Amino acid sequence: MTIAEYLIRAIHTTGTRHVFGIQGDYVLNFYSKLSQSGLAVINTCDEQGAGFAADAYARLTGFGVVCVTYGVGGLKLVNTTAQAFAELAPVLVISGGPGLSERQGDPLLHHKVRSFATQLNVFREVTAAQAVLDNPKTAAAEIDRVIKAMHETKRPGYLELPRDLVDADAAEPGVLPQERLATTKAAIAEPLSKVLEMLAGAKSPMIMAGVEVHRFGVQQQLLDLLDRSQFPFVTGVLGKSVVSENHPQFVGVYAGAMSPDDIRHTVEGADCVVVIGPLITDLSTGVFTHQIDPAHAIVLMPDTLMVAGVSYPGIDMQEFLAALIAALPTHAQARQAIKRHALPPFVPERGKAITMDRLMTCVNTFLSDDTTVIAEPGDALFAGLDLRVHAMNEFLSCAYYASLGYAVPAAIGVQLAAPHRRPLVLEGDGSFQMTGMELSTAARYGLSPIVVLLNNGGYGTFRPMLDGAMNDIHPWQYAEVVRVIGAGKGFVVATEDELARAFEAAMGNTASPTLIEVRLDKYDGSARLKELTAKLKRRVR
Amino acid sequence: MTIAEYLIRAIHTTGTRHVFGIQGDYVLNFYSKLSQSGLAVINTCDEQGAGFAADAYARLTGFGVVCVTYGVGGLKLVNTTAQAFAELAPVLVISGGPGLSERQGDPLLHHKVRSFATQLNVFREVTAAQAVLDNPKTAAAEIDRVIKAMHETKRPGYLELPRDLVDADAAEPGVLPQERLATTKAAIAEPLSKVLEMLAGAKSPMIMAGVEVHRFGVQQQLLDLLDRSQFPFVTGVLGKSVVSENHPQFVGVYAGAMSPDDIRHTVEGADCVVVIGPLITDLSTGVFTHQIDPAHAIVLMPDTLMVAGVSYPGIDMQEFLAALIAALPTHAQARQAIKRHALPPFVPERGKAITMDRLMTCVNTFLSDDTTVIAEPGDALFAGLDLRVHAMNEFLSCAYYASLGYAVPAAIGVQLAAPHRRPLVLEGDGSFQMTGMELSTAARYGLSPIVVLLNNGGYGTFRPMLDGAMNDIHPWQYAEVVRVIGAGKGFVVATEDELARAFEAAMGNTASPTLIEVRLDKYDGSARLKELTAKLKRRVR
Repeated sequence: MTIAEYLIRAIHTTGTRHVFGIQGDYVLNFYSKLSQSGLAVINTCDEQGAGFAADAYARLTGFGVVCVTYGVGGLKLVNTTAQAFAELAPVLVISGGPGLSERQGDPLLHHKVRSFATQLNVFREVTAAQAVLDNPKTAAAEIDRVIKAMHETKRPGYLELPRDLVDADAAEPGVLPQERLATTKAAIAEPLSKVLEMLAGAKSPMIMAGVEVHRFGVQQQLLDLLDRSQFPFVTGVLGKSVVSENHPQFVGVYAGAMSPDDIRHTVEGADCVVVIGPLITDLSTGVFTHQIDPAHAIVLMPDTLMVAGVSYPGIDMQEFLAALIAALPTHAQARQAIKRHALPPFVPERGKAITMDRLMTCVNTFLSDDTTVIAEPGDALFAGLDLRVHAMNEFLSCAYYASLGYAVPAAIGVQLAAPHRRPLVLEGDGSFQMTGMELSTAARYGLSPIVVLLNNGGYGTFRPMLDGAMNDIHPWQYAEVVRVIGAGKGFVVATEDELARAFEAAMGNTASPTLIEVRLDKYDGSARLKELTAKLKRRVR
Repeated sequence: MTIAEYLIRAIHTTGTRHVFGIQGDYVLNFYSKLSQSGLAVINTCDEQGAGFAADAYARLTGFGVVCVTYGVGGLKLVNTTAQAFAELAPVLVISGGPGLSERQGDPLLHHKVRSFATQLNVFREVTAAQAVLDNPKTAAAEIDRVIKAMHETKRPGYLELPRDLVDADAAEPGVLPQERLATTKAAIAEPLSKVLEMLAGAKSPMIMAGVEVHRFGVQQQLLDLLDRSQFPFVTGVLGKSVVSENHPQFVGVYAGAMSPDDIRHTVEGADCVVVIGPLITDLSTGVFTHQIDPAHAIVLMPDTLMVAGVSYPGIDMQEFLAALIAALPTHAQARQAIKRHALPPFVPERGKAITMDRLMTCVNTFLSDDTTVIAEPGDALFAGLDLRVHAMNEFLSCAYYASLGYAVPAAIGVQLAAPHRRPLVLEGDGSFQMTGMELSTAARYGLSPIVVLLNNGGYGTFRPMLDGAMNDIHPWQYAEVVRVIGAGKGFVVATEDELARAFEAAMGNTASPTLIEVRLDKYDGSARLKELTAKLKRRVR
């Protein structure tokens, strides 16, 4: 078996069925083999689009792959890989490389920067494991090591394949040692009894679920815990939709001061909070304005437990949840009424100019069980937090690292990973100008995302912090993009009734992308955005 | 004086008048000050476009600046900065950063990857000097140090400014020590006499000029040497247009086996070659097929001289050239006839399908003294090598690092650096899909590049190496892009007469961008491309 064959088999073994990328001569031979391997190779417009698409794919399936050429391909992926690292999306970056024989004498080969190690050094900073497959004897073992590290950390990995080793014979690797130690029951017993005691004594206990619930595979356990306890629950921003938001115990998305009052009161008035997966970031907490008293908190991290401020390292989230669910008395009903935050129904008013709030109300009405919302950082995300998402994992955003340009390419990854789903992209005008042309890729592969483009004439998130002409961008006729890519339907809407009609048409167009440009006032913004930017403004100067 | 004021003054001192970039909250305050500083701040669609534009600007003016936010901005610039590093374009990357006060306790701030040092570590790999301006006492000195290193190495630099130090008082720096040692006359004397002897005895001496002639500022000296010696000369690929190609002694662009026969015979038949600036790369030499015997070569590098295979380290290119010109006997005329490689005149044939060769003949006819050609890597570059460029520095390409997506953003940098010039972009269809929408930026700032888009239905450079459906891309209606950006003129041409008419219209449209989509056969390619890809094919597998 050659190194290429081994690598392709390893990709298959992860369950992945799609690889995103753009070829180049250093990766051409491997890329050609990939294309013939039964894996679908998805060619994006730019490598950046491939990186973001693979990230979204990884969030849905647990593994994403992007394959590019050396230097000019790989180094375009640094930002997308950094985001995957920060937000726990296991994306494998495969880069071709100059052949070992070509490297002799250190010549100036095209796409080389400082040395042949430059790209590897850069990726050390943004991936959990790396390998240059420059030795046929160890290549297979190195592939296994990198993929194993990705599964364990949920972070990206990097493999570089010199082009003259693509067809080299790979030695079969030995079995990798199982390094993970099982948690002993003894370690769990003490904190478990303390947790049961806290929960038994609580009058208004609740659960807060973070994105780790999804990344570390404890969604079913969360559902079991909710069922057993009957506690109300919220999610964090990144954790939005880790389980269906139609769940009867769901309250809303909590983000500190950047939350509607009803959600804030439920969380901050609780006398005991079980936090499962606490990725505490500035944007997810309204700039660290979350008010959860550690003395009343039980915090489950992937490999550490905190109970009322006492830390129990080495306790596995999954095992502890299993023990907790087994030990918890079954409650027939909630101890308190569940106050769910809800958006009103949308009845379009003819000729009325659209606002962000009303737009989100409209979007909410059109959500179905199959809709996956992908929200670009900015008000698309913050206003989108109150949408009621029907099913598990149907809301995607890069709410921590927050790279603009994510949403449109992510829609490609989403619909390839889950073909029965309909991506609904909430997109800004500034970010659309970065990567929006990847709608071309969606059209090419027969996908049908609906892009709702919030056109507020520039970088609207910055206006409340520091305004000026620098926040304006060049106005595009966004709906004309469908002419350029030769596919899809485009709409421009400014009033509520136009919006409703465009949405109906979009839902009916399942054959190609739809773009709805929504003209908004330059200074319009959601309540959540106003709260956040007021906080951030103080840090700007 | 604050750190921001000091940095802005330092940028002014370099002579730069434009800064390219996109803001974000970590850089918002500094960006706002930049916008009010008298420097023009050019807001591109994506950071990638800003990086490429700044690179082209630096190639023309000697210094470029790109200013972005932390993480999501900076890490999108890794590839463009890598190219600037490889090809000696001094681009200063200024990134905002989280405030020092915000970093305390190592919180999860948005745009953070592994640690607050991640971005700095990445840029260490692709810049010549770096500094995080985290100390008001040393910030000014650090700014000076980084800019000085850029001037000396002609490579990019990196400055990161924590947002809470933008308005901090900067201590005035001391005077930087002059580290460079002047070459002593004694060191020059011996090799100079040897060089004079070689030249005196040569029957068919010639000169080959590389890109370093431009980067290290010896263009006038090259002209003096040409005048004094009357030798014929060629340039390398990257060195194309270091002096006007209308110079009577100019033969053509030499690229090893990837050269027309007449040029190859002139160079390879010479009995003595003076090579000034020998950046010997694979793409510039037809994959190392250049045939210049070291025993007959005099090679001037920025700080080393090689004479007939003997190395004289520490000899400065500029000083040696001055001594050589002074010592060289004046020749009234060439010792040999100059055989210049020329393109025939273009007389369009009605209804005849366009080929690459004929397209270049047409482009050549339309070149004027003000036209700056920017050629995208691929056949746009290779076929473009035989264009006769009228004036100095009027041909730009990234012929070594060869990142796709360079040409359109580069045109923005070119026309802002030299407003009297008209950029003529030779662009591929694949690369246009990466960054072509930056035509929006050109339109926004009143620029008028002419983009000649060679539409051969995909990644045509790879087809001769390894063909397959993977080399196809989604067909765009490229000319419709002018509708999206709401400016410019678009043409689609397939025949010679259509091409000529579109070119005439383009020359007349000096108010906005023009895009001419030229439909070419999928397998058409220039003679130079065929030669190169035949060589590269052997390395692909």
